Amino acid sequence: MLSCMHEHDGPLTRLRRGHEQAVLELLRKHGPLSRAELGARSGLSRTTLHDIVGGLVGSGSVVAGTPHVEVRRRGRPVEKLSLNPAAGEAVGIDFARRAVHVAAVNFAHEVLGSASESHGAELSWPARVDIAARLLATLTAGAPVAPATEAGRRDGSDGSDPVRLDALSAIGVGVVGPITDPGSVDARAQGIDGLPELLRERFGVPVLLDNNTRLAALAEAVWGAAADSGDVLYLRLSHGVGGGLVVGGALHRGPGGLSGEFGHITVDPAGRRCGCGGTGCLETRASLDAVLRRYREAGGRADDLAGFLDAAAAGEPAALDVLERVGHDIGGVLAAVCQAVGPGVVVVGGELAEAGPALLEPVVLALRRRLMPLARRHVDVRRATLGEAGSALGGIALVLHESPLLSHYPRPVSEENA
Amino acid sequence: MLSCMHEHDGPLTRLRRGHEQAVLELLRKHGPLSRAELGARSGLSRTTLHDIVGGLVGSGSVVAGTPHVEVRRRGRPVEKLSLNPAAGEAVGIDFARRAVHVAAVNFAHEVLGSASESHGAELSWPARVDIAARLLATLTAGAPVAPATEAGRRDGSDGSDPVRLDALSAIGVGVVGPITDPGSVDARAQGIDGLPELLRERFGVPVLLDNNTRLAALAEAVWGAAADSGDVLYLRLSHGVGGGLVVGGALHRGPGGLSGEFGHITVDPAGRRCGCGGTGCLETRASLDAVLRRYREAGGRADDLAGFLDAAAAGEPAALDVLERVGHDIGGVLAAVCQAVGPGVVVVGGELAEAGPALLEPVVLALRRRLMPLARRHVDVRRATLGEAGSALGGIALVLHESPLLSHYPRPVSEENA
Repeated sequence: MLSCMHEHDGPLTRLRRGHEQAVLELLRKHGPLSRAELGARSGLSRTTLHDIVGGLVGSGSVVAGTPHVEVRRRGRPVEKLSLNPAAGEAVGIDFARRAVHVAAVNFAHEVLGSASESHGAELSWPARVDIAARLLATLTAGAPVAPATEAGRRDGSDGSDPVRLDALSAIGVGVVGPITDPGSVDARAQGIDGLPELLRERFGVPVLLDNNTRLAALAEAVWGAAADSGDVLYLRLSHGVGGGLVVGGALHRGPGGLSGEFGHITVDPAGRRCGCGGTGCLETRASLDAVLRRYREAGGRADDLAGFLDAAAAGEPAALDVLERVGHDIGGVLAAVCQAVGPGVVVVGGELAEAGPALLEPVVLALRRRLMPLARRHVDVRRATLGEAGSALGGIALVLHESPLLSHYPRPVSEENA
Repeated sequence: MLSCMHEHDGPLTRLRRGHEQAVLELLRKHGPLSRAELGARSGLSRTTLHDIVGGLVGSGSVVAGTPHVEVRRRGRPVEKLSLNPAAGEAVGIDFARRAVHVAAVNFAHEVLGSASESHGAELSWPARVDIAARLLATLTAGAPVAPATEAGRRDGSDGSDPVRLDALSAIGVGVVGPITDPGSVDARAQGIDGLPELLRERFGVPVLLDNNTRLAALAEAVWGAAADSGDVLYLRLSHGVGGGLVVGGALHRGPGGLSGEFGHITVDPAGRRCGCGGTGCLETRASLDAVLRRYREAGGRADDLAGFLDAAAAGEPAALDVLERVGHDIGGVLAAVCQAVGPGVVVVGGELAEAGPALLEPVVLALRRRLMPLARRHVDVRRATLGEAGSALGGIALVLHESPLLSHYPRPVSEENA
C-alpha cells in the first residue's frame, strides 16, 4: 500500500530501492530465508543479492544466523537471513503545540503502545525531547524485543536498559507547520531548527520529519478509520483546522509541503481575518475558538469545549444549531476537495469530532448536496479512530514506508551509545 | 517521472513489472545490449532475465538480432536485444464530443505528428473509429518506422501498408466522461459500451482508455506547459469545464474515476442549475456558453467565441469585464484546490484560454488573494501549449506509462491482420 517510489530519483536508485524493498518484504512474509531461497524468490542475481543484503545487514535491518534445525547434507549449517526484530522496532513522536505523544511498534508492525504528556506552550526543544525519551522508556519497558541471533546485537549494551533505543531503525517525528526539507533554511523559519540534530544525538538513529496533521492522515489510512482505503481525505478540527491527503495509498506532501491545508480554503471572502493572513478561511469558522465564539454569539453559556460538547450531547438547541452551521461550512469545503481529488473516504478527527453525529450529519448533508450527483455515492464520511496518538503512529508509518531508504541514510553514532 | 507502480498489485507482480521496466529503460537508454550486459546492468539473475526478456520478446516489445560489427573471440556472433521500433510506436486517439483527434510517436518517444477531423455530435462509434483509422493512415505514412531486424517482423505483411498499425504496441484513447474500468457496467451507462472491443478488433492491439480531459493534463505534464513539474493542476475551459491532476508525477484518477472535476466545484450555492445536477458550479459561470451569456448580459454584441475573443483582443470593456469576473470565479476555485493538493503548476487550456492575459491575469490575482500567504510563492499559472492534440498525446503518454503492463495483456489478433 505504501510502496510508491520516489519519482525524483534516478532509475538505478529506484531499482536499488525496489530490490531492498523486495528483500524486506520476502523476509517479512516468509520469515528467515537462506541466500539461495532469497535469490530464487526475488529473482536477483547472486552479485546483486550480495550487494543488497550486505547493505541491509550493514544498516542493522537484516541479521544473519544459523538455526540448529536445518543443515546441509554435507553437515555445514545453512545461514538464514531474517529481519532484525530489534532494529525493526520503530518509534513515532508527535511534538504538538502543548503536548508530546509517542508510540512504538515492533518489526512485525504490531503497536506496542502509546503515551502522552502535556506541557506549557513555550517549552524548549531539549525539554520536549526529554519528555519524549521518558515516555518512550515507559512504553518499551518489557516490550518483547530481543535480538534473534547474536548478530542482532550491534553494540556492547548489557541488555539491562529496558528502552533499547539503540535498537531502533529510525524515528518518525511530527511537528507543527509545513515540512519539506527539515535541513533547509525553512526549518529555521518554522521554529524546528536544531530539532532533527537534537533527536539524532539523543537516539542515535535517522530522523524523518513531517507535519503532524499529515502524519495523522497517514496513520488513519494505515491503522485507523480508513485502513481499507488508498484514497483518504483527513480533516482535523482542533485549535487549528488542517488535514492531509493520502492519494493512491501514498501520503501526498505537495510542492512546498503545503498540501492538506483545508483550514485555509476560503468559506466567506468577506469574512474574518485568519491567522494565516487570509480572510474568511474555514479555520475562522470551524476551529475550537471559532466554534465557541459562534456558540456564545448564539446565546450559549459554556465557555470551554467540554461544556459545549456536554450541551450538545444534552440536545441544547444553541449548541446543535452551531454544530449544524459549522458542519455546513465544513461540508462545503470537503465537497470542493472531493470534486478535485475524487470522492473517497473522508475521516474527521480532532477534539471537535467528539461531538459525533451532531456534527458529522450536517457535514455529510452539505457535502453530498455540493457534490455532483455522480460522485455522491462514492463518498464515505467517518470519524477518526486513533485519537491523540494518531500523529505519533503516523510517524511510525512514515518510518515503515521509508524503511528501504534507511541503508542510504548516514547513521550518526550518538555519544550515549558509543 | 511516470514510473509510479500500481498500488493494488501484489509484491511479486510489482516486482515483475519493475524488472520489465528496468530492462526497457536500459534498452531505451543504452541502445542494443547483449543478455550478459543486460544482466550486469540490471542486477537480475540469468533465470529471471531469461523469463523477463522472453515475455518482452513474446509481446513484440523487444527484438533479438546479431549486428555484424561485434563477434566473440571464438567467432560466434553475440545476440543483442533492442527495443522493437515498430512495436514501440504508440498512438493516441481522442474521441471528443464533435471531433476525432489522433497523434503518434515512435519508440524513441518522438512525436510523429497529430491530425483532427470534426463530425456531427450523433456520429456512431464505428464511423468515429473509421475517422481515427483514416487520420492515423495519413499521419504514419512515410513515418521513419522499420523493424531493426528480421525478428521485428511479426507477421506476413509485405510492408506496403504505410499505416503499419500491425506494429503498434497499444492505443491510448480519450473519451468524454469519467472512466474507471471500461469493461464494467459503467461503460454502458457512459455510452462507450463496445468501443474498446471495436478498437481492439480494428487495430489488433490492447486499448487503454481514460477521460480525455485527464489525458490532456497528463500530456501537458509530460510534453507541454508543465513538462518540468511533477505536480500539475490542469483546467480546461471549453463547452464544459473540467481538468486533471498529476500528483507526484503520476496521473491521479481518484475513486470512481472522478478526480479533476473542477468545473463542478460550487462557486455560488444560490446560482444556476448545472448540467451535472448540482447548483452554481464553476461550469455555470466559466463554460463557453456561460461566458457568452455573461457577455451578452453585459451588453456585448458578438454571439460566438471568435467574436468575443476578437472583442476582448480589441480591448472592448464589456468583454474585458466579463473575462475579469470569470477569472475571479476560476481563481477562487483553483485556490481551494491548491490549498488541498499543494500549490504547483496550474495549466489553463481549452478555447477560452485563447483570451490570454485578459483571462489569466484576473485568474492569478484571485488565486493568489485566496491562497494562504505561505503558499503564494509556490503557485505558477501557465497557458496550455498542446492545443487540441493534447488529449491524443495524453493517450500516448498513458500507453508509455503503462507499457510494462503490455506483456500481461491478452493480444487479440484482428481478423484484418490474420
